[in-house]
Amino acid sequence: MKIAVIGATGTVGRAVCAELQARHEIIDIGATRGTHRVDLLDVDSIKRLFDTIGHVDAIVATAGHVHFGELVKMTPAQFRVGLDDKLMGQVNLVLTARDYLNDGGSFTLTSGIVGAEPIRLGASAAAVNGAIEGFVRGAAIELPRGLRINAVSPTVLTEAMESYGPYFRGFESASGARVALAYSRSVEGAETGRIYQVH
Amino acid sequence: MKIAVIGATGTVGRAVCAELQARHEIIDIGATRGTHRVDLLDVDSIKRLFDTIGHVDAIVATAGHVHFGELVKMTPAQFRVGLDDKLMGQVNLVLTARDYLNDGGSFTLTSGIVGAEPIRLGASAAAVNGAIEGFVRGAAIELPRGLRINAVSPTVLTEAMESYGPYFRGFESASGARVALAYSRSVEGAETGRIYQVH
Repeated sequence: MKIAVIGATGTVGRAVCAELQARHEIIDIGATRGTHRVDLLDVDSIKRLFDTIGHVDAIVATAGHVHFGELVKMTPAQFRVGLDDKLMGQVNLVLTARDYLNDGGSFTLTSGIVGAEPIRLGASAAAVNGAIEGFVRGAAIELPRGLRINAVSPTVLTEAMESYGPYFRGFESASGARVALAYSRSVEGAETGRIYQVH
Repeated sequence: MKIAVIGATGTVGRAVCAELQARHEIIDIGATRGTHRVDLLDVDSIKRLFDTIGHVDAIVATAGHVHFGELVKMTPAQFRVGLDDKLMGQVNLVLTARDYLNDGGSFTLTSGIVGAEPIRLGASAAAVNGAIEGFVRGAAIELPRGLRINAVSPTVLTEAMESYGPYFRGFESASGARVALAYSRSVEGAETGRIYQVH
């Protein structure tokens, strides 16, 4: 398969590339690094990317920013950061890149454990992740040509515990390699509308 | 209790008022109708409303618009309608009106069955409802002073079947009166972070 990995230079993206590259042709894409660049907030940028790389069999997205902060101090503008970036970035990707997926191809998006399992400072992240998962369930039944869509909901990454550990006390972390298996299951499996929790 | 019902003139809002008014003081609020008016997209409008009506013991929101349409024709702008209106309206309400809730008071928001159970044309609604439910779980653990927050996820209303029936073939409808019980349970109960499904 020819697989586009967006967010390929992040911790999860690197692990996904490592898992899939032995069996598939990987196109690594980032916002500021990687072989190809894309701004998921700009539909024209998404079109230019796929006009360059051509049709693919699978698209994986592991990119997106969310504001973490105290609920009692959070402004509507801060709350919107994750809606505008992590959520709409992935939604724009699906609405735009769908035409560049070969029949039976798949989208694999990224949500996260915050949403199912709340943490302090995470109210906006919880909304964003809940939205991504609702979108995946809703979009799965409408995609044409046997196209599939799933999401992976990872817990905190072992590789990120040094910075994120204080926010996730008591949570079991998962290695990037273990999280990458869920992406492989989505890309190389046959299901659609699934949320693969790696919790 | 003194209870503010926002969206009080809609089908669900009217049923909630009917359920609660025998035991409580109800303040009915709408966007264009009702005793008081508010624009949930405008934080200053929310502040003016509560400066007028004063502190309350419970706030119920049953308001919000979402775009329904085919996924393969949906534009990012159409997708955003529900994020900007139904989601951010309720989020703005929580972030702003929190200071006008008495200790131990509650928010009861409204999501919907589309999100848990997909229907055609409902990909954006599914994202919005998923976001509201994630937000409720996330916000519940951070609200101060014993404040609580829950959501009600109604199925299609029996009273709305004439217009919405074609989108919900095979779904069991629920009467407004039955859906209103879930709001009563949230307002008059003691739980927080719950999604009360009336499916």
